Amino acid sequence: MTTFELTKEYLEKIETAIEQKDETLLKAEMEELYPADIASILLELDGEPAHYLMTLVDTEMGAEILSHIEPDDRKRFIKERFTVEEIAKYVNLFDSDDAVDLLNEQTIEVREKVIALIEDREQARFILDMLHYPEDVAGGLMQKELIKVNANWTVSDCVEEIRRQAEDVEKVYAVYVVDDEQKLKGIVSLKRIILARKNTKIENIFDEEIVYVETTRPAEEVAEIMQRYDLDAIPVVNTLGRLLGRITIDDVVDFITDKAEEDIQVMAGITGEAEEDDSVWQLAKARLPWLIVGVIGSLLAATVIGSFEDEFKKVAALAAFIPIMGSTGGNVGIQTSSLIVQSLAEKSGLTTSLGQRLFKIILVALVNGIIIGSLAGLYIYVSGETQLFFVVCLSLLSVVVLASFTGTVTPLLLDRLGINPAIASGPFITTANDIIGIGTYLMIANLLLHL
Amino acid sequence: MTTFELTKEYLEKIETAIEQKDETLLKAEMEELYPADIASILLELDGEPAHYLMTLVDTEMGAEILSHIEPDDRKRFIKERFTVEEIAKYVNLFDSDDAVDLLNEQTIEVREKVIALIEDREQARFILDMLHYPEDVAGGLMQKELIKVNANWTVSDCVEEIRRQAEDVEKVYAVYVVDDEQKLKGIVSLKRIILARKNTKIENIFDEEIVYVETTRPAEEVAEIMQRYDLDAIPVVNTLGRLLGRITIDDVVDFITDKAEEDIQVMAGITGEAEEDDSVWQLAKARLPWLIVGVIGSLLAATVIGSFEDEFKKVAALAAFIPIMGSTGGNVGIQTSSLIVQSLAEKSGLTTSLGQRLFKIILVALVNGIIIGSLAGLYIYVSGETQLFFVVCLSLLSVVVLASFTGTVTPLLLDRLGINPAIASGPFITTANDIIGIGTYLMIANLLLHL
Repeated sequence: MTTFELTKEYLEKIETAIEQKDETLLKAEMEELYPADIASILLELDGEPAHYLMTLVDTEMGAEILSHIEPDDRKRFIKERFTVEEIAKYVNLFDSDDAVDLLNEQTIEVREKVIALIEDREQARFILDMLHYPEDVAGGLMQKELIKVNANWTVSDCVEEIRRQAEDVEKVYAVYVVDDEQKLKGIVSLKRIILARKNTKIENIFDEEIVYVETTRPAEEVAEIMQRYDLDAIPVVNTLGRLLGRITIDDVVDFITDKAEEDIQVMAGITGEAEEDDSVWQLAKARLPWLIVGVIGSLLAATVIGSFEDEFKKVAALAAFIPIMGSTGGNVGIQTSSLIVQSLAEKSGLTTSLGQRLFKIILVALVNGIIIGSLAGLYIYVSGETQLFFVVCLSLLSVVVLASFTGTVTPLLLDRLGINPAIASGPFITTANDIIGIGTYLMIANLLLHL
Repeated sequence: MTTFELTKEYLEKIETAIEQKDETLLKAEMEELYPADIASILLELDGEPAHYLMTLVDTEMGAEILSHIEPDDRKRFIKERFTVEEIAKYVNLFDSDDAVDLLNEQTIEVREKVIALIEDREQARFILDMLHYPEDVAGGLMQKELIKVNANWTVSDCVEEIRRQAEDVEKVYAVYVVDDEQKLKGIVSLKRIILARKNTKIENIFDEEIVYVETTRPAEEVAEIMQRYDLDAIPVVNTLGRLLGRITIDDVVDFITDKAEEDIQVMAGITGEAEEDDSVWQLAKARLPWLIVGVIGSLLAATVIGSFEDEFKKVAALAAFIPIMGSTGGNVGIQTSSLIVQSLAEKSGLTTSLGQRLFKIILVALVNGIIIGSLAGLYIYVSGETQLFFVVCLSLLSVVVLASFTGTVTPLLLDRLGINPAIASGPFITTANDIIGIGTYLMIANLLLHL
């Protein structure tokens, strides 16, 4: 098939069939679709029809569908209709990492009941172990499903092991080699196994050069490592070097896209993981913190401006250039800090000292400041407010340089303090630069105009 | 190994060894490292020492290293020191997709000379074909290296084919099944091949349900599809359904991270793909367009404010609340539009009509507007500027509602017009909302104060 696209017409067809309880049609339609596509249909349906549709597919398919629903949506979906027994039935068939994710979304009560109902007791024990890891470290991302063999096994032992676990381990990628104490020794690709003779010993063909991570490694670094070395899966070991599990590339891709979405929201001044279909109050709450920071900042600016009241009475045209100082300060600040944040994230610029960085950034600021200052100067010349010519041009140049300076220093400082420097590209910094811009302007006006 | 981290000390050690032309030490060090790590060292060195280091590793390793350098850096790196013959030597050993990427970075002149020097003429022809595809569609991302077999082959024919191509196809993932006309019929996983008997016919074990894309499919959709169906590789076919190549997950991960970086830069108001280590002029140029848009917007605001000059003379305190209107308008606008942009990108909210969307967003705006308005009201009450109490509170509420409205409608409109809605979360919209905020405020002031 090429790819499925959920249209309004198709959705209506399914909804009608559900109303009419047309099992034959629904089952036939579901048969044609991939689990991920059925998941996207379920999200568009209301609770009751969605639950009904789930009862029409077999448990294995149901588990696949559930594992393709985003955490937040799944949490709501499960909470609305599913009994603990139903959840356990699906979790039984989940890969261990998906099971842990799903259980992490539930209340402690539901979680314990579900674990008690999991048939495979070894799986249940593993899940309990995994629940201890935070979700954003390697231990919280790994799955226990993998193929491991002993170095002194032969290729045909290895094939037998793959056969034995064929159902549990959906994607093999490679076989891990461990010693008698379960310590990770190396890796053999499936390609190599296919091409080797059956009685070849694994110790003669495995690759000792292997990249692995410990359970406590932050998820971001795992993603960076897998991307850097082009890995499809990475083994996870404990502090003793024992192989505990592996992280597959699909989970890392999900992590990277979630992270990117979060970065955008941080920049947009939204806290938490808001989505358009959250409730009104949730959406309002996600926006409030930064709006309030912005308002407090602007009220500070209001106090500053208020203290220049007499000056405004004398030269009312001064008010006209408040916005240009504020917005230029904000824009330049965010442009500068975003680049610094990105270069921090990529760990590039290792050899650049703070002095070198600042020198270059100030040069860029001078170039832009002169161009922007000239533009504003031209406007003033044409509009006839020549009294403010030098005040506005000089202020703009200063604002660009100052905002570039704070835009550079703030993320570097936050990073050194162990705070996520990305917040330096959010409304906090924009507001700060806003105030700095307006303050600079009024001070320069005061000095030059002898008000 | 756990993972390599490039420290200042290590870099200095390498630099000293290069100065002393200590080949033995350098070769020993390079032997220990992965190509990706050597690539990150090269980026920190100057042109001449970096080129010298490349001459110390064999061509195969050199090709691996080059394929791990980011396009922009590689372009500069190659331009500085490499002859056409050297480039061709490495490109000979590249996977076809990497070869195409590298050639796309060169001038047409260099590109043609290199292609003429590629030893494998079939590879050269393929590269010429691929150069026709834009870089952001499936055809521009695919590589021709893959294993394909005929449905009537046996498993052992298939293993022989894998052996024959073992060197060319580094990661196999799965074997594609085609008919006599090279039309894609299905797929067999390596796991299945390992577990099948040698004389089993491929037609009896292959999976007909296969997700593929055509050459013209946009890269973003390819990424979305691979992520949705958890694919490690996706086959690419032409309009006749003939198998041309495949796209592997590592390239898609690179695409996703580049895209995320670009989104952030769009929001920060930076055009092109700027990086902190670009030249001063490049950096200034990348920032100028949006700064100028911001300045023009603010000068428009200046004109609006200027037309209220008499009002400012009468009530100078009016000036104090210009920043709060501007920044609140900007902040609310960006918060609203970012959520709409994300939901457009995820194609969620299929069943939400524009009316429903607006109704909800206005409700959120009312909640936030009332809270923020009260905060500002409190400030005014305390500061004693009670004349402006109603003006500021009412204006803030209106600004929040208006900015939410424009923040919703603008990205939806841009999307309908086929323009990337992400620009609606950039400085353009912030500036527009800035002006709307200030304009609303001054009009309300004018009405309520009868100035």
